[in-house]
Amino acid sequence: MNRTDTPVTVIGLGLMGRALAGAFLKAGHPTTVWNRTASKADQLVAEGARLAPTVGDALRAGSLAIICVTDYQTVHALLDASDVELDGTTLINLTSGDSAQARETARWVEQRGAHYLDGAIMAIPPTIGTAEAVILHSGPQTNFEAHKSTLDALGTVTHLGADHGLASLYDVAGLAMMWSVLNAWLQGTALLRTAGVDAASYAPFARQVAAGVAEWLPGYAKQIDSGSFPAEVATLETDARAMTHLIEESEAAGVNAELPKLFKAMADRSIAAGHGGEQYPVLIEEFGKPRTD
Amino acid sequence: MNRTDTPVTVIGLGLMGRALAGAFLKAGHPTTVWNRTASKADQLVAEGARLAPTVGDALRAGSLAIICVTDYQTVHALLDASDVELDGTTLINLTSGDSAQARETARWVEQRGAHYLDGAIMAIPPTIGTAEAVILHSGPQTNFEAHKSTLDALGTVTHLGADHGLASLYDVAGLAMMWSVLNAWLQGTALLRTAGVDAASYAPFARQVAAGVAEWLPGYAKQIDSGSFPAEVATLETDARAMTHLIEESEAAGVNAELPKLFKAMADRSIAAGHGGEQYPVLIEEFGKPRTD
Repeated sequence: MNRTDTPVTVIGLGLMGRALAGAFLKAGHPTTVWNRTASKADQLVAEGARLAPTVGDALRAGSLAIICVTDYQTVHALLDASDVELDGTTLINLTSGDSAQARETARWVEQRGAHYLDGAIMAIPPTIGTAEAVILHSGPQTNFEAHKSTLDALGTVTHLGADHGLASLYDVAGLAMMWSVLNAWLQGTALLRTAGVDAASYAPFARQVAAGVAEWLPGYAKQIDSGSFPAEVATLETDARAMTHLIEESEAAGVNAELPKLFKAMADRSIAAGHGGEQYPVLIEEFGKPRTD
Repeated sequence: MNRTDTPVTVIGLGLMGRALAGAFLKAGHPTTVWNRTASKADQLVAEGARLAPTVGDALRAGSLAIICVTDYQTVHALLDASDVELDGTTLINLTSGDSAQARETARWVEQRGAHYLDGAIMAIPPTIGTAEAVILHSGPQTNFEAHKSTLDALGTVTHLGADHGLASLYDVAGLAMMWSVLNAWLQGTALLRTAGVDAASYAPFARQVAAGVAEWLPGYAKQIDSGSFPAEVATLETDARAMTHLIEESEAAGVNAELPKLFKAMADRSIAAGHGGEQYPVLIEEFGKPRTD
């Protein structure tokens, strides 16, 4: 079968669901769609999609179905309908949720004979169908490999591992990085503005530092995996002293110092635990446990 | 004058000072050094440096002097010696300190007839003399331009602006970015480890996200400079909901949730102030003021 002949079903036609179905249509896949409010399918039907009257009917159109709805409660409610037959279907759930929901849903649909992948979309609807749209998948690798050539129509699709919870975990971890880069940039921008530097002048410097530090991560990861943190570049104590400068500059400039103070508090706890002479990644020990004191 | 013939003086021969003097020597500059403990100069003298008996004598060797000592108190003490003549000297102070100290030192040495630049070294000693070593300078641009060809021997040298405090401010802002990228990576690594993913497997994903988000900063800076934050990609409310997922996943996995909670607290304050429908950079208003509630 030519891969663009593979029929695909898309359940849920919010902004993201419509973008997903549109990308499959554009790639030439016979595309069946379903949505609670049928009128959301009008444009897709005009582009060649078939609108199914029920979720069960939509699923019978082929062996691959994508579901992208409001939440996991909705996923369960829709798949619980009396005419839904999941045996032999590969279900890819791109609904936002957490890792526990992903694992639980996997058990539930697998018991009904479905192949299941949980996914997370790290993209906004307009980029779906381009390489810029990163879509993470987790679950059995064979499920992913069997449909990768079809999923390629959606963007840059990757498989993270057999644990169905991984897509959700990578998703929130990636968001933590996004917010961190943005917050650090905002901290620096706020500080520099007090000296008359506008945001546009400061941004290229922040971009360069973020991209530069990103390059260190694979090397630093080796320290974590080996559990050994020699101070090749600087000691945690040196970092902590510089953090004091950041706090003092922020306070002197009258900008927010909460973020620098949290950095310092975590470094200080690690130093108090005897790690002051080791390198920054030793803080994994603080990040790896709940705050207890 | 051939630029490699320009005589240079380096005051202070800690690890960094020795690296700076070594880079000047390597580039062919007649290099005069001084250090409180003279034996620190032995290797440099073997490489061709001249060891001056006093700071005043060292400064008389030429019109360009770099000072890199423990702190600004030491800078003041050394330049207060009776045989020190600063008139006509360009003094570049690469000692670690804050923006207030930089501005105050500028006033003090300029009153004595010196040209002054304050600087910050964003590098470790082994990289000095390579393009990897970024050295920031602030103060009158003419002071920088007059000596840039000589300073090029030290690494990638840049000039930030006329305000002598800028080098210190950019320095701590860059460090804030460094710690933020590292902390976000540690948060994600801690979370993924609970699902059996090792640090080496997760690091390339974190690197990709950090580098990708870094590219957004110049565009987001335009929102800040214009004071207008339309939600082109996502609203702050959408971010805040996803932050709740991060907090919940962290707590469920038994890892630290302080950083996600601080992100959420700042976003929530901005939403409470009426900015929930705007885009993330609107948080500049929270970063730009001290925490008051």
